[in-house]
Amino acid sequence: MEGETASETRQLVAFAASRRFEDLPADVVRESKRCMLDYLGVVLGALEADAPRIARELIRTLGGAPQAHILGFGDATSVSNAALVNGVLSHVLDFDDTHIPTILHPSGPIMSAGLPLAEWKGRSGRDLILAHGVALEVSARASLALYPEHYDVGWHMTGTTGTLGAATASALLLGLDEGQLLHALGIAATQAAGQREQFGAMTKSLHCGKAASNGALAALLALGGWTAAADSLQGRRGMFSVMSTASKPMELVEELGQRWEIRRNGFKPYACGVVTHPAIDAVRRLGSEQGVRADEVERIDLRVHPLVLELTGKTDPQTGLEGKFSIGFATAIALMEGAARPRQFTDANVRRPDVVALRQRIYAVADTGVSHTEAIATARLAGGATRTEHVRAASGTPENPISDADLRDKFMDLAGPALGQAQAAALAELVNRLETLDGLAPLVAAACQAQ
Amino acid sequence: MEGETASETRQLVAFAASRRFEDLPADVVRESKRCMLDYLGVVLGALEADAPRIARELIRTLGGAPQAHILGFGDATSVSNAALVNGVLSHVLDFDDTHIPTILHPSGPIMSAGLPLAEWKGRSGRDLILAHGVALEVSARASLALYPEHYDVGWHMTGTTGTLGAATASALLLGLDEGQLLHALGIAATQAAGQREQFGAMTKSLHCGKAASNGALAALLALGGWTAAADSLQGRRGMFSVMSTASKPMELVEELGQRWEIRRNGFKPYACGVVTHPAIDAVRRLGSEQGVRADEVERIDLRVHPLVLELTGKTDPQTGLEGKFSIGFATAIALMEGAARPRQFTDANVRRPDVVALRQRIYAVADTGVSHTEAIATARLAGGATRTEHVRAASGTPENPISDADLRDKFMDLAGPALGQAQAAALAELVNRLETLDGLAPLVAAACQAQ
Repeated sequence: MEGETASETRQLVAFAASRRFEDLPADVVRESKRCMLDYLGVVLGALEADAPRIARELIRTLGGAPQAHILGFGDATSVSNAALVNGVLSHVLDFDDTHIPTILHPSGPIMSAGLPLAEWKGRSGRDLILAHGVALEVSARASLALYPEHYDVGWHMTGTTGTLGAATASALLLGLDEGQLLHALGIAATQAAGQREQFGAMTKSLHCGKAASNGALAALLALGGWTAAADSLQGRRGMFSVMSTASKPMELVEELGQRWEIRRNGFKPYACGVVTHPAIDAVRRLGSEQGVRADEVERIDLRVHPLVLELTGKTDPQTGLEGKFSIGFATAIALMEGAARPRQFTDANVRRPDVVALRQRIYAVADTGVSHTEAIATARLAGGATRTEHVRAASGTPENPISDADLRDKFMDLAGPALGQAQAAALAELVNRLETLDGLAPLVAAACQAQ
Repeated sequence: MEGETASETRQLVAFAASRRFEDLPADVVRESKRCMLDYLGVVLGALEADAPRIARELIRTLGGAPQAHILGFGDATSVSNAALVNGVLSHVLDFDDTHIPTILHPSGPIMSAGLPLAEWKGRSGRDLILAHGVALEVSARASLALYPEHYDVGWHMTGTTGTLGAATASALLLGLDEGQLLHALGIAATQAAGQREQFGAMTKSLHCGKAASNGALAALLALGGWTAAADSLQGRRGMFSVMSTASKPMELVEELGQRWEIRRNGFKPYACGVVTHPAIDAVRRLGSEQGVRADEVERIDLRVHPLVLELTGKTDPQTGLEGKFSIGFATAIALMEGAARPRQFTDANVRRPDVVALRQRIYAVADTGVSHTEAIATARLAGGATRTEHVRAASGTPENPISDADLRDKFMDLAGPALGQAQAAALAELVNRLETLDGLAPLVAAACQAQ
């Protein structure tokens, strides 16, 4: 192969290939387990959605060696098939974890590929935590190297850098050496894809499924001896140049091993785009702290980060999915029901006359002085009184993290109906002692519905 | 789904979904059959290469329902698996057909997905010709809409718009209606990928394999009810905007149904990048027309299109694969052996001292006044005499097409060693009467080695 690998890529790959479980700080291990619990919850909450159902039916038709199980559904199939359906499941509710600085949803691609590979290869809970922690570091740092220009142009980070995360986790679980990991990342980089035009469409969730299966494919090919260009990430026609006009490769290595990006990863309390969360927090507080009721509201004015209107500015949503992309619906239902979980984002709720009427009295204004974890909601009530709530760090962000108890509540809310309360609780307990598990088969079995 | 489909996309989709075999002009049918013969030749010539061998081994491990057969190897597997390996096979020799205006290699993605789907669904030879002709039109027009900026930035057209071609062919062979075809194209568009950094690396061929399998996946998902954004190609965050800063959507529809892009598709006489072909022609003519011998050459000066040096400027190739990306090696071996077929591009030839010595006496200069089907070669001989050849339209271009006899020679040269001469000749005969075949199973069987 002609040319050399740029030093930042080389350093990151050397770091990733040489980590051991013992190298992970205790809080990184703890956050990784929280990621796993949250991941399994959003997967299991999605079993009734159309996208994973269609993907599962197709996988049944295409077939595959029974290497691992699709989560929830329980089908035994090939690791790449399982990664695809797992990835769709994990992202379709728009409820998965978020690397706050880049809006990457890191754990979907990583866990969706990692769990089937760990199951197939008989890896331990520690192996999986290590693979997840390191893969999250690689994909989040690649995201930092590309953000914001890459995202602003229209790339969906979870589809693009998510592929690098899935490839890294797969490579570590397959036992690839440093040279093979470099090739796996190159094979992954050139498959990276996913356009933001699909936001609000079923196909958004495919980006996560393909990131997972393409990442797994990259690692499996590298294991078989497949090679990629030496400088697939940073070369003149490589991923960073082709997918961004303003990449910052130094982000790959700055404070590597000191700063862990998982510490800037958050969990969503609400089942919609993370940019809407500060405003939902603010409106919910109007209700819970100041007793504001929908029927007395004349209007609500929201001051939000500009991205909120760009991403969730749908003005006349008709379906539950479209409701996730309407800041007006999301805040209206949050005031009326005090929550914004999957059961709020239904077609029926989106069309409910009282919800529509409140939504039409909510006005969101973009304010470049407002950060993307911040929002200000001002309600004017019948009679003229006003009430204001100012949220500076939305719940679920690192500055305002979800407690273990709240995270478990979210998990049980999603997994309970799918598995039954007892099995869901048993699954949570397995995740709680993930680092003690010699193999992942019992955990995967607990995460599948009875056949 | 919010928003509308832009009119150019709508027109193209309506056109594609409503064509019948009877609508195809006779020369389009004829060229489509020539594409098929050439496609099968380059596939069968690649059975010993590393990339398809590794991909096939992985597919064996992952498994799949026995829906169709991988060409050459003969494994029965799922249509998406077969599409992946077929696609790698078809591109790894860098010997497949080329849409001259955009350097798209159209038939690899289309046939690699189309043949397994046609076999699986029991489609006829006419169905396959129709799917190929229409899919080539769609992917070539999408390429025209993006070229040259998309390519110049570093996208590999065969990986990107090739995915649209594979999706279109798959959709037609699956019997999708117009609405489903629109969704299939959207699902395909957001998977489009492949960076030119991989040129000269094994991973280049994966772009074609993934275009084929991702395109098939898109059509299969759409068949199952999966939906994409309304304006996946032309929307603000859709494929054209995200992957180009200078797209020309009018190219999708200009003279649609009158002008057929297959008429601007060429076949490679040489097993390396199409940009090198004019120079190889010129140097071969120095030998064949003017009797120039390598050992009497003091130096050869080449005046070539600038892309030649950008794409094939490798100065010290060490492997057969790297030799394809060295204009110096490609022209040196062409003068010495009178050919530039796969058997010329070997590691041994690249390292042969006499070849290296001649290569080091060949000087290529980029000339913006030279078109990309043109080259001028001037040899200075011992004693001071000079000989010049000026090629204006390289062999294999539409202005200088390969004859049916030469195309058959190329096919037999590639397929004969893989299948034996008798079986290869029988396969060529089946292609010759493709429009009379009720099913493709006999053709696929003839294109597989005896197990």
